[in-house]
Amino acid sequence: MPKKAHVFHTPDPKNHCFGCGAGNRSGLHLKFAFDEASGGFVCNFRLGKRFTGPPGHCHGGIIALILDEAMGKVNSLRKVVALTSEITVNYLKPVPLNQSLRVQSREIRVEGRRHFNQAEILNQEGIVLARSHGTFVAIDPNRVFAKLAEK
Amino acid sequence: MPKKAHVFHTPDPKNHCFGCGAGNRSGLHLKFAFDEASGGFVCNFRLGKRFTGPPGHCHGGIIALILDEAMGKVNSLRKVVALTSEITVNYLKPVPLNQSLRVQSREIRVEGRRHFNQAEILNQEGIVLARSHGTFVAIDPNRVFAKLAEK
Repeated sequence: MPKKAHVFHTPDPKNHCFGCGAGNRSGLHLKFAFDEASGGFVCNFRLGKRFTGPPGHCHGGIIALILDEAMGKVNSLRKVVALTSEITVNYLKPVPLNQSLRVQSREIRVEGRRHFNQAEILNQEGIVLARSHGTFVAIDPNRVFAKLAEK
Repeated sequence: MPKKAHVFHTPDPKNHCFGCGAGNRSGLHLKFAFDEASGGFVCNFRLGKRFTGPPGHCHGGIIALILDEAMGKVNSLRKVVALTSEITVNYLKPVPLNQSLRVQSREIRVEGRRHFNQAEILNQEGIVLARSHGTFVAIDPNRVFAKLAEK
């Protein structure tokens, strides 16, 4: 894993990503920072009522979204843009709204263009509430995004 | 699978669920209908720009959310309330914004309290863009939601 002292995802008003885009007023505005100790990314966040699933708790799909976003960030350490191919999410405990939470992610391994990453959401006591594994496939962003824009 | 002629999830202004709650202005407002042919649920929807992931396309986490929501609805046919325990999502093709799409879900099998369901998102040509498998655990909603509300 190539190490970098600090890799911050700074706000970009042209970024409309629902997970991390500063240009998306409806989004989560997740801000990730490189964590030297784990070699992965961390983000502290708090979820408002609009992300409700079960009463008073976060929607399972929003949990998947946060984990997907965190795992996707890990690919930037390899200087690749990679799209999600598969994710598996294990819901271990209900994820509360209006509380300080943390998501942390790291690389598991790389096989050719396929990047295997992991992420976890933890509460303030460090208890893991949800865990994910993901497979991401590295792409040529100029080719793929140009093709996507045509559609 | 017990059949019902029509099971519609009618809008409930007190429902704050991000996926299907009429009371959540930020949510997706997905409306599911029972599909007699498949014995599962279907929902037609269209995604606006706020759900962006890759440029012009839906965020992978929102795709997981829609599939989770669709699979969760299937449990109502067994007259149980069940929480998501695990989901796996396979991203087969990019999911476009601003196009008519359909999500359909059905039961695979039930083992005790564990309900195994499947869902797919399709475009207008019937091509499957994303597929999911989920495990849901039946709960006593009075007990569990009362406990959740205490937290």
